[in-house]
Amino acid sequence: MSSLTGKWFIEYTHPSQAHMYGIERYVYDGETPFQSIEIVDTDFFGRCLILNGKIQSAQYDEYIYHEALVHPALAVHPSPKEILVVGGGEGAALREILKHPSVEKLVMVDIDRDVVELCQKYLPAWNGGAFEDPRVEVHFMDARKYLEDNAALWDVIIIDLTEPLDYNSPSYLLFTREFYELVAQRVKTKGGIALQADNLNPRLLQYHSSLYNTLKLSFKYVDSYGAYIPSFDSKWGFIYASQDYSAQDCRPSFIDARLEERNIRGLQFYDGLTHLNLFALTKDIREMRAREKRIIKDNDPFFSY
Amino acid sequence: MSSLTGKWFIEYTHPSQAHMYGIERYVYDGETPFQSIEIVDTDFFGRCLILNGKIQSAQYDEYIYHEALVHPALAVHPSPKEILVVGGGEGAALREILKHPSVEKLVMVDIDRDVVELCQKYLPAWNGGAFEDPRVEVHFMDARKYLEDNAALWDVIIIDLTEPLDYNSPSYLLFTREFYELVAQRVKTKGGIALQADNLNPRLLQYHSSLYNTLKLSFKYVDSYGAYIPSFDSKWGFIYASQDYSAQDCRPSFIDARLEERNIRGLQFYDGLTHLNLFALTKDIREMRAREKRIIKDNDPFFSY
Amino acid sequence: MSSLTGKWFIEYTHPSQAHMYGIERYVYDGETPFQSIEIVDTDFFGRCLILNGKIQSAQYDEYIYHEALVHPALAVHPSPKEILVVGGGEGAALREILKHPSVEKLVMVDIDRDVVELCQKYLPAWNGGAFEDPRVEVHFMDARKYLEDNAALWDVIIIDLTEPLDYNSPSYLLFTREFYELVAQRVKTKGGIALQADNLNPRLLQYHSSLYNTLKLSFKYVDSYGAYIPSFDSKWGFIYASQDYSAQDCRPSFIDARLEERNIRGLQFYDGLTHLNLFALTKDIREMRAREKRIIKDNDPFFSY
Amino acid sequence: MSSLTGKWFIEYTHPSQAHMYGIERYVYDGETPFQSIEIVDTDFFGRCLILNGKIQSAQYDEYIYHEALVHPALAVHPSPKEILVVGGGEGAALREILKHPSVEKLVMVDIDRDVVELCQKYLPAWNGGAFEDPRVEVHFMDARKYLEDNAALWDVIIIDLTEPLDYNSPSYLLFTREFYELVAQRVKTKGGIALQADNLNPRLLQYHSSLYNTLKLSFKYVDSYGAYIPSFDSKWGFIYASQDYSAQDCRPSFIDARLEERNIRGLQFYDGLTHLNLFALTKDIREMRAREKRIIKDNDPFFSY
Repeated sequence: MSSLTGKWFIEYTHPSQAHMYGIERYVYDGETPFQSIEIVDTDFFGRCLILNGKIQSAQYDEYIYHEALVHPALAVHPSPKEILVVGGGEGAALREILKHPSVEKLVMVDIDRDVVELCQKYLPAWNGGAFEDPRVEVHFMDARKYLEDNAALWDVIIIDLTEPLDYNSPSYLLFTREFYELVAQRVKTKGGIALQADNLNPRLLQYHSSLYNTLKLSFKYVDSYGAYIPSFDSKWGFIYASQDYSAQDCRPSFIDARLEERNIRGLQFYDGLTHLNLFALTKDIREMRAREKRIIKDNDPFFSY
Repeated sequence: MSSLTGKWFIEYTHPSQAHMYGIERYVYDGETPFQSIEIVDTDFFGRCLILNGKIQSAQYDEYIYHEALVHPALAVHPSPKEILVVGGGEGAALREILKHPSVEKLVMVDIDRDVVELCQKYLPAWNGGAFEDPRVEVHFMDARKYLEDNAALWDVIIIDLTEPLDYNSPSYLLFTREFYELVAQRVKTKGGIALQADNLNPRLLQYHSSLYNTLKLSFKYVDSYGAYIPSFDSKWGFIYASQDYSAQDCRPSFIDARLEERNIRGLQFYDGLTHLNLFALTKDIREMRAREKRIIKDNDPFFSY
Repeated sequence: MSSLTGKWFIEYTHPSQAHMYGIERYVYDGETPFQSIEIVDTDFFGRCLILNGKIQSAQYDEYIYHEALVHPALAVHPSPKEILVVGGGEGAALREILKHPSVEKLVMVDIDRDVVELCQKYLPAWNGGAFEDPRVEVHFMDARKYLEDNAALWDVIIIDLTEPLDYNSPSYLLFTREFYELVAQRVKTKGGIALQADNLNPRLLQYHSSLYNTLKLSFKYVDSYGAYIPSFDSKWGFIYASQDYSAQDCRPSFIDARLEERNIRGLQFYDGLTHLNLFALTKDIREMRAREKRIIKDNDPFFSY
Repeated sequence: MSSLTGKWFIEYTHPSQAHMYGIERYVYDGETPFQSIEIVDTDFFGRCLILNGKIQSAQYDEYIYHEALVHPALAVHPSPKEILVVGGGEGAALREILKHPSVEKLVMVDIDRDVVELCQKYLPAWNGGAFEDPRVEVHFMDARKYLEDNAALWDVIIIDLTEPLDYNSPSYLLFTREFYELVAQRVKTKGGIALQADNLNPRLLQYHSSLYNTLKLSFKYVDSYGAYIPSFDSKWGFIYASQDYSAQDCRPSFIDARLEERNIRGLQFYDGLTHLNLFALTKDIREMRAREKRIIKDNDPFFSY
């Protein structure tokens, strides 16, 4: 990739802030019924998935995002058997979940069949064969409708969705008080949920803090956590929520023991010390989050930039 | 700042990766005998200092950089009295150091008088009046020469330098084995040093890891730590080194007690839990750092991109 | 100027088209009561003046713009004595006008005293000493008011204004049918006017064509002409208008003879053959201009992008 | 195309000058054995062909480039029957040539079969059916070798090549004194050649001027001409050369008569007045070109930026 000429993808996080990604090749460039999708090769991050103009995951650092999204919630649970993934197009959340040997049933509900199929075709390593695993079941439909129609309960629910940009975004009713109330009803005792939860840049903390506030209405324990993800150019937020456990109180030795007893050895990012890092929020973030009072509701949704 | 037109500062971290900062006004744009300097106003980060094309500190998040650089080393020390700052042009490291009431003598050695004076003029809040404090003494000279010529010992040495870009960079002999050997000789028993230590992006970890290796040759305890700094677009690395203490072993309650007994209450970023976050490196970084074997030497310096 | 890092000025001509100018130094960056102003040094175009986010003139090619703006109208006139410049902040139009030895009185009316003074300070070569010439008189006021209040007639009126961007732009009533009617009343027999008249890019021709249509209502002869101006990234439009002469019918030998008899020898851009080039519009532009029917009026102004 | 996010193609013409093209969709992104190729959709210029990082032609203004390249040479010739195109991948030069009814044989020699076939697939309107015309014959080979091996003579030779960027560029021996000597030997009496001949930006005139000088060694009449091409962001240079005719001496009425007698009516850009515009170079360009003395030779080639 020459720095002097060529293809660039420019992603704005604010009218006066943007990141420029040099592109080696557009592998796929199109639209689904729900969103625009680009799959690109970069020399810095390898192959990347872009949805609606935002980098979703990159070959060289998707392990950070997906390990951070999945493992805390599963490690905290004593024996996760039935897992639901809301969204999760690339299949990489499935890949990580299946590393926990207690998993017996893993259902993924994603509205966008095209994204899932394009990821299978162009990003096959992302799912690591998960779609062929007999425990996995995929439904292409609106996840809120799925949860309304199915009374099944889950040990862990992983929510891997892109923030809505406007009322046209398919996910705008999947980030609200009403949705999280429904989710809470579908979690078993001792269960928990984890979600990606927007940027932890202190200048852009409103979305994360509002999600935190909103989840506090439906769950007893709600823990923000964050991981620096280079391809996002930022420390990214996640939230764990449960009626029974606090993830942030788990000590490194507890996490390492859980991984050891489950014989999970090949993780690149997550272990006990990483868990400590993830859940130990810095003082500025804790204080800013506490000042935000917004609750996200069906009739007062929160759109991302 | 309109997104559609105008002044942008583009900082590359790699030939195919760049960050675009929208600029509201160039407050100062010039050159010193040692480097180019721009002081700019942005709406997103407030006023920013740029040296040699790289953002050094920004009004809205310099508290993260300077609190992370200064407080761990001073909190670990039981009673820091005599402190040396190598570099530190803006005076913000001085400001943070002076919050520790035991400090009796604080010497700053920076080669570039113009930068220091321009920061005093255009970024007065950065130093918080430190240059008027009777305990503070400033020398405008090469810090290596200063340390060679002055046999004085220090409780803490804070090294706040920009990485060299090439042999013309004034700092290129301040990031080497020989320099750190000299520094180690100037630290008192129970003392320690802290330095900014390049990017913790896993794709750009070679500089940090090499600094870590190089410091291990002169210090018994060397701890990497990192803080996400939005205006750097990255998690940034620091290193604490000492013959007597490990900073990463300090528990949050220990740090909080130290701050409490010193009556340091107004920090925005640093406290016990933040300390935990800073020093708990994620697994990927720990493993990548371990694979790097490079030592930086006077006759084999390491230049940044 | 390194291509890899640093200061860039990005000027959009359309939401999906922009030009990036590498900046060596911001010499001045501020605001006047009427507009934002930057004076910058570039290695490619030398020093440049930017008003409201648009490059106005550049050291290395301002000769093209100012010679094209001034000389056709003055060369066509048999003996231009009294000249009015509307706008013309840099003083470069004055400089070119004063090359015609018949000029006895030269009045410039510009609303923005700050721009004129900043140009005198930072772009002194632009005016070539014109502001010290005893024939020159400068008024800082609205040019429409000046023309309403002063019944004086002029041999040539040169209109050197920036297009309005919105109702806040000081020039928005200086590009309308009503204004041109007033201008026409202030031109002597045998006189003419010339104005800069927006882009001649066929994809952006609406503004130029509308100006052409609007001027046709007040003048018998109206000739579009165009010059490629590198710092504008485009072929730029001008219009000559008169009740008595057609500039486009002047042959090269006629223009060369006029310049010769006036002893004007040092022009870099304009001569008879250049005149031929300027006024010979290509077929596509002639046909597109003919399809545009818009008239610009006080109550229906035309704003530029 | 949102201005705020997404796909951009950035083309540098100099280390500190670049144009940003907003891209709606990458229709094709790949490499041939000879060059990189992208076919993109833009909202401003429609579909565009990019070779080796440089825009070659755009749907909305390729008529300017191809009419300017082809028609002057064919209009000057009293009865062009046998025509050779060197390069010409898109087939648009063929399309324009075939508008002259006297053409009996039209041979195109392009080294890059992939480019020709991709253009036929993705830019079908560019060739206007030319590849199905029985008079047209296409050879995929090096054009210099073709001319060396084939002693056939031609009424007009159109050279439509991209400038070489380095010794790897397939065209680097097709812009030299030795090549033009060979070309001159293959032109019939009364014949002529035309070529695209780099930028006419006065700051970037060296390549064009050197081509002009080099052609003067093999042809009696050599005329530079230029057309503003919006998608190139510049006035672009062409050269006509012949032993028998000067194109720049042709009057508009002569050109219009030629087009009329050949019943060529649908041109968008070219006619007599356009011819006048094309060949009337401005004074600055004439004088700068005269100062350049370089000759391009096989052993001293000229590479473009």
